[in-house]
Amino acid sequence: MKVTEGGVTAAKGFMATSCEAGIKYKDRTDMALVYSDTPCVCAGTFTSNVVKAACVQWDKQIVDSGKPMQVVVINSGIANACTGKEGFDACEATAKAVEKSLGVQFDSVAVASTGVIGMQLPVDKLVAGVEKMSKTLDSSIEAGTAASKAIMTTDTVNKEVAVSFEISGKEVVLGGMSKGSGMIHPNMCTMLAFLSTDIAIEKKLLQEAVSEVVSDTFNMITVDGDTSTNDTLLCMANGKAGNDIIKDKNEDYETFKSALLYVCEFLAKKMAADGEGASKLFEAKVINAKSKEDAKTLSKAIVGSNLSKAAVFGCDANFGRFLCAMGYSGAQFDQNDVELFFESKAGKLEVFHRGTPIVFDEDEALKIMKEDTVTVFVNMNEGDAQATAWGCDLTYDYVKINADYRS
Amino acid sequence: MKVTEGGVTAAKGFMATSCEAGIKYKDRTDMALVYSDTPCVCAGTFTSNVVKAACVQWDKQIVDSGKPMQVVVINSGIANACTGKEGFDACEATAKAVEKSLGVQFDSVAVASTGVIGMQLPVDKLVAGVEKMSKTLDSSIEAGTAASKAIMTTDTVNKEVAVSFEISGKEVVLGGMSKGSGMIHPNMCTMLAFLSTDIAIEKKLLQEAVSEVVSDTFNMITVDGDTSTNDTLLCMANGKAGNDIIKDKNEDYETFKSALLYVCEFLAKKMAADGEGASKLFEAKVINAKSKEDAKTLSKAIVGSNLSKAAVFGCDANFGRFLCAMGYSGAQFDQNDVELFFESKAGKLEVFHRGTPIVFDEDEALKIMKEDTVTVFVNMNEGDAQATAWGCDLTYDYVKINADYRS
Repeated sequence: MKVTEGGVTAAKGFMATSCEAGIKYKDRTDMALVYSDTPCVCAGTFTSNVVKAACVQWDKQIVDSGKPMQVVVINSGIANACTGKEGFDACEATAKAVEKSLGVQFDSVAVASTGVIGMQLPVDKLVAGVEKMSKTLDSSIEAGTAASKAIMTTDTVNKEVAVSFEISGKEVVLGGMSKGSGMIHPNMCTMLAFLSTDIAIEKKLLQEAVSEVVSDTFNMITVDGDTSTNDTLLCMANGKAGNDIIKDKNEDYETFKSALLYVCEFLAKKMAADGEGASKLFEAKVINAKSKEDAKTLSKAIVGSNLSKAAVFGCDANFGRFLCAMGYSGAQFDQNDVELFFESKAGKLEVFHRGTPIVFDEDEALKIMKEDTVTVFVNMNEGDAQATAWGCDLTYDYVKINADYRS
Repeated sequence: MKVTEGGVTAAKGFMATSCEAGIKYKDRTDMALVYSDTPCVCAGTFTSNVVKAACVQWDKQIVDSGKPMQVVVINSGIANACTGKEGFDACEATAKAVEKSLGVQFDSVAVASTGVIGMQLPVDKLVAGVEKMSKTLDSSIEAGTAASKAIMTTDTVNKEVAVSFEISGKEVVLGGMSKGSGMIHPNMCTMLAFLSTDIAIEKKLLQEAVSEVVSDTFNMITVDGDTSTNDTLLCMANGKAGNDIIKDKNEDYETFKSALLYVCEFLAKKMAADGEGASKLFEAKVINAKSKEDAKTLSKAIVGSNLSKAAVFGCDANFGRFLCAMGYSGAQFDQNDVELFFESKAGKLEVFHRGTPIVFDEDEALKIMKEDTVTVFVNMNEGDAQATAWGCDLTYDYVKINADYRS
């Protein structure tokens, strides 16, 4: 497997475009469209929030129906959540506009939204945007990059990646883009991710691979503990690579899953590091836990704690806060088994050893904590399961962004 | 029932004192001692954190043993959590110093700590503090107030209250003090609460009343979602009011429980409003939920959401964030049943009605949100259970306090 250029347009047969639709932002693009020139098998994962946005309900219908997917239309102004029947009608109007402009079935058109909850979308602007975009479809790398910029809200960098690998003698490409800083995201800006690949694979196996990989990547990041109403990941596979179609969990399937894991982990970490107001990527690695579930629970609790996040912002090796978060996570363990380290490019330092604090060199700790990526490394000494979670620090800017958002 | 002066020394037979022990702070008191001149039946509730501070383990032993309690010694410098055997030895040394100075059994001496996790307590300073305090025991209101100040860490105001009521023709007094801003508290400063009463009551009933009331008061506040390693509430009852001892859940028991509810709710709300960096008390009232548990889950999710808290700080009636938090709380409901209002002294405004946003007057909303106490009022229209939770807004000062804490 090798990392290649571009993102959502990297795989054969995929095109993208974007435009200034004026839904919320002025003087910037705020709509994007991803198109496959042939119908795709598709897989999706969606927010677990009981309050689901209209577009999440729309997309879930398509994924569950077993029908092909061919287009995704995204806007980055209004979330279309808590909008009742009018919100659902806006999804349908968008899909019908795509059917009219591009001649694809309206029920193969997914829609995704991100932005303020509880406001209605301006349907006329959406439809005008679709018409405009239908004339500028482009398979270039640049068009994919432009789409990844159009879906940003409070993101400070666009997020895209692509990889290529070989299956049954054919080159297969998987690319993707995402926005937001978490499955758990500030401002209801929402985590959105769109993956496109030219692999030939059965729908059931595509969904299985996507669900499994998402649970180890996107579901392991957090910015502020707020699970959005709009979280959506869609993966479209159009089969254009010409590989023997994957029907079993054979070696080809594992090759594809490795590529998927790379792409999802890359985008997930990039989102965590770009969490609102973040100055650092904050990583927690838990090893030798009793079970995979425990390892996940513990690592997520560490990166999710406001106090841990504030300590990371302050470059303070205040390890008690990290142990405390592990303690209330819900996982059972004995603190007398635990070893806790801080780690970064600048070094690795043990601060707590099997129940007892270690007197450590504060200057060395500060050097480690000052790096752009800081890892809390925990050895539970209770089993052989491990997990990694990603988050970011809690800064003044997080408060600023979120106290001001709607205005 | 009427509210009277003072706190922990208001009930007959209780004395308090405090001193500058120099454990962490300079030029301020940082140890307190509460003493009953006769042994007390006692009840306690403690942190659910798996990582329990040494003092929590010490106190739990006393409460569980069924033996009487007569003294509580508190320090506000170091949490004595994650300190291994040395930490437990510090508890014993403190209790033995009290035995020596005041002639009470060392296993009737509770100890409580709050402050930094993962540092060892200076036992010599603790013992010197106990010796000093044993000479200044005082039953005055002022001594109780001084004790409530000595246990503060990042608190900006001391917290105490007392009430009196009649049982079997006798006046009974219940007083208390607390520190911190939550069961769920910044800086591991920890929530501590100490209640003293002269009521005569059986231990089992005292514990039952305390546990029930705590779950509706202290357990319904949150500042940052971080459950401390040290949370402790202790209630001592010395029987000096001379009432007929309460042995059943009769009318007297209910009278006492009402007084207990008042005292605990008063102290809990005061902690939430004094959450680190807080500028407002933020309250969520959920009515007509399917079950009490759902009502609690929903109201706690609203006041616990970083995004809701930041919106409250920004005086932004961004109701989607509150609905979103309800949606990921774990409670099941249909958004088409929900009515959501913002409420304060300045008025009450419906913003979401059974699945659809209401276009509201932003100026009116701003007027409501600007008050010192802001309530989100939610009618679930699904049953008849209700609950209230309390928290505070998320401000720049919260980040400042917690990025700087240890230094």
